[in-house]
Amino acid sequence: MTEAQTWQPRYASRSVRMEASEIRELLKVIAQPGVISFAGGIPDPALFPMEEVETAFVDLLALPNAGARLLQYSVSEGDPDLRRWIAGYMAAKGVPCDIDNILITNGSQQGLEFLGRLLISPRDTALVLAPTYLGALQAFAGAEPCYDILTPEQTNRTAASYRDAAARSGGDVKFAYSVPDFANPSGETLSLAARERLLELSRSLDIPLIEDAAYTDLRFDGDDLPGLQALDVAASGGIDRSRVIYCGTFSKIFMPGLRVGWVCASRQIVARLTLIKQASDLNSSALNQAIIRRLAEQCFDEQVQKVRASYRAKRDRMLAALRAHMPGGVSWSEPKGGMFIWVTLPSHIDAADLLQRAVAEVGVAFVPGRAFFAAGEGSNTLRLSFSLPSVDEIDDGIAKLARLIAAE
Amino acid sequence: MTEAQTWQPRYASRSVRMEASEIRELLKVIAQPGVISFAGGIPDPALFPMEEVETAFVDLLALPNAGARLLQYSVSEGDPDLRRWIAGYMAAKGVPCDIDNILITNGSQQGLEFLGRLLISPRDTALVLAPTYLGALQAFAGAEPCYDILTPEQTNRTAASYRDAAARSGGDVKFAYSVPDFANPSGETLSLAARERLLELSRSLDIPLIEDAAYTDLRFDGDDLPGLQALDVAASGGIDRSRVIYCGTFSKIFMPGLRVGWVCASRQIVARLTLIKQASDLNSSALNQAIIRRLAEQCFDEQVQKVRASYRAKRDRMLAALRAHMPGGVSWSEPKGGMFIWVTLPSHIDAADLLQRAVAEVGVAFVPGRAFFAAGEGSNTLRLSFSLPSVDEIDDGIAKLARLIAAE
Repeated sequence: MTEAQTWQPRYASRSVRMEASEIRELLKVIAQPGVISFAGGIPDPALFPMEEVETAFVDLLALPNAGARLLQYSVSEGDPDLRRWIAGYMAAKGVPCDIDNILITNGSQQGLEFLGRLLISPRDTALVLAPTYLGALQAFAGAEPCYDILTPEQTNRTAASYRDAAARSGGDVKFAYSVPDFANPSGETLSLAARERLLELSRSLDIPLIEDAAYTDLRFDGDDLPGLQALDVAASGGIDRSRVIYCGTFSKIFMPGLRVGWVCASRQIVARLTLIKQASDLNSSALNQAIIRRLAEQCFDEQVQKVRASYRAKRDRMLAALRAHMPGGVSWSEPKGGMFIWVTLPSHIDAADLLQRAVAEVGVAFVPGRAFFAAGEGSNTLRLSFSLPSVDEIDDGIAKLARLIAAE
Repeated sequence: MTEAQTWQPRYASRSVRMEASEIRELLKVIAQPGVISFAGGIPDPALFPMEEVETAFVDLLALPNAGARLLQYSVSEGDPDLRRWIAGYMAAKGVPCDIDNILITNGSQQGLEFLGRLLISPRDTALVLAPTYLGALQAFAGAEPCYDILTPEQTNRTAASYRDAAARSGGDVKFAYSVPDFANPSGETLSLAARERLLELSRSLDIPLIEDAAYTDLRFDGDDLPGLQALDVAASGGIDRSRVIYCGTFSKIFMPGLRVGWVCASRQIVARLTLIKQASDLNSSALNQAIIRRLAEQCFDEQVQKVRASYRAKRDRMLAALRAHMPGGVSWSEPKGGMFIWVTLPSHIDAADLLQRAVAEVGVAFVPGRAFFAAGEGSNTLRLSFSLPSVDEIDDGIAKLARLIAAE
C-alpha cells in the first residue's frame, strides 16, 4: 500500500460518520498563552483536593496486598465498595438501589457511548434537545442513529408523531436523552412540569429515558428539583421497574483525570452494560476507583460546597459582565448552576466567524453553538464556560468580546 | 414497566450477540479459598514494582501544577511523552515511527474493540486462528462479524477462497487477527514462514493485519522473531505504508490495573481511532499514563527480565509436572514464552464437564477450550495458565488434575 492510498473505503459505515469534535480540535488551537478561554467545559484544577488525593494514594498503596487488590485485573462491574457508596448517594437522591444497579464507567462519557451501542440499531431514532451535549452526539454517532428533537418545556409533539417520524427514518424511537440540570450547553434546568412531560413521553413510547446528571450537584441557587430517575422510581415502584437510566460522574466534583463515572439503572440494563464494559476494556482501574471511593467517603459534601461557592462567584461575575457590556440584541441564559451560559447573537452574526476574530483580535475563545445541534442549526449562538477562568479574566474577556460583537 | 418485563426487545442487534465471558464468569466461581487456579491469564502481583509505583505517584503529585497536568481532562491521543517512549520502543522492535503513529488505549483490549468498530460492518468477515484469544472475539462481537479461520502454519487456503467465503456470508474480508508470540490460548509462536504467509495474505486481500503483541516481551527461550509489523514496515517502506496494526500493552510487564496499552499503526488509522477514543471515553487517565511513562523510563528492561525469570521457572515446573503425571492420550503445547499451555485431552473427555469435577473434587481450575474457538469446537481442549500460581501449587495442581483425567 502506498502512503497516498486511503484507508477510507475499508472503514465500517458506523465509523465513517464520526468526525473530529470541533470543541476538542478547538481546544488545541486556543491553548495559546494569553488567550482567555470560555471554551472547554473544564473544571478548575485549583479546586482539586490534591492533598487528599496524595494521602489516599500513599495509604492505599501501603495496604497489605495492594498490588493484588488495586493494580490487578478486577471485575468489570467495578469496585463493590465504590458501588455501595454510589448506591447510598443515589438513595439520598430518591433512588433506592443496590450495587447490582450500578456499573462503573470511565467517566459518564463511556456510559453514554455504551447506551448508544446497547439501544440503537442503524436508522433508529434518539430524541435529544436542541441544543444538546455535543459529547453525547459523538458518543451515539457510532450506533448510527437518526435524531428527533425534544421540546419538554412546551411539548407540541405527541408520542405518535415521534413514532411516525422514526418509522419514516426507517427505525424505532429507542431513547430520549436529557441533561435536566444546568444543561451543557444551554445552562437551562428543566421545570418539574417538563420533567413530568419527558417521563410521560417515555411511558407512552415505552422507551428508556437517559438522565445525564453531570452537573446536578453544582446548584448555586434555589432548591433541588427531583431527578428524572427519582420521579420515575417513585411512580413505578422501584429502580428495577424504572425506564430511566442515570449517568453520573465524579469529574465535575473531584476531578476528571481519574476517569470515574457510573450508570445507575435497572439490574437488567446494568447486566447488559457490564458485558459491553467487559468487551470494551475489561474493567476500569481498581486503583482509581479506590481513590475516588476514599475521597467520596472523606469529603464529598465539603468538596461540593467548595466547588459550588467558586463557580457561583464566577457565574455571578460573568452575568454581571454580560449585563454591563453586551450590546442590545444579544441575549443569554441565567443558569442556576453548572458551568455554562448560552448566548444568542443577532441573527446576522455567525458565531464560528466571530470565534476566529475573537481569538485573533482580542484573545478570547468560546464554542460556537452549531456543534450542539443534531441538525446543525444555531449559527448565531455560542457557549461560554465560566468554570476555569479567573473572575478578572471573566470581566476582561467578556468586555472584549462585547466590544467585538458591538462592532459587527 | 414491570420488573418481569424484559428489556431484551429494545436492544440493538449488535448487543444481543454479546454474551458473558465464560472466563470472567468462571473467575468469580473459582475465586474460592483453597482452589488452585490455572484459569485466568493473570500476572503475578508479587512481580509488580510497588516501590517504584509509590515513588512515582508521590513525585508526580508533588510537581507544580500536578492537578492541571495529571488530573484534568487531557488529549484523546494520549500523553505525548508516553507516546514518545513507545515510539522509541517500537523503533527498537524494527518499527521506526513517531508519536502520530501511537494512540494510548485502556489496555490492548480497548484497541481491539476500537478496531472491530472501525473496520467491520455487520456480516463482514474477520480472519482468526482456531483457537484464538477469547477477549478478541468478545471485543469484535459488537461489530457483528462473521469469522473464517487462518491456518498460517500450513496454509491450504487461497486469498480467493477467503474472499469467496466472505461474499457468501454477505460481506468482505476486513482484517486478519493474530497473536504471533506465545499466543493466548495456545502458547504457540508463529514461525517466520507463517508470518510471511500471513503478510502475503494481507497483501493479496488488501486488508489490515492486526498483531496482538500482548506477550511478545515474555520470551523465555531462543531468539526473538521479527514482528508482523516490523516485517511489513521493512517490506513496504515505512509505518505509514504498512497494513499491520499493532496492539501493545503494559499489563503483562508492569501491571494491568493502570489500564494502559497502545495501538501503533499508520497515522491515517491512528487519526481515525482517535475519533473513536474521543467518542468512547474522551481520554485515558493522564496520571496513570504518567506513572507508566515514569516506570518505563526507569526500569522497563529490568522488569522484563524479572517477569521472564519468574514465568520461565513456572513454565518449566508446569511442563515437568505434565510430563510426570499426565496419562497417555493427553498432549500439550511447549510454549517458549508467555503465560499459557494448551492441553488436548482424549476426544471422549469434555473439558467443561472436567472443570466442574476438578473444582468440586480436587480444587483445581482451568479454562475449557471451547470458548476460544469462533465456531465452538475444541470441547476436549483446555488452557492452563502458569503465571499466577506458585511452583508448589503448580506441582500439586497438575498432579491432582492428571489423576482426575486418568480416571475418566
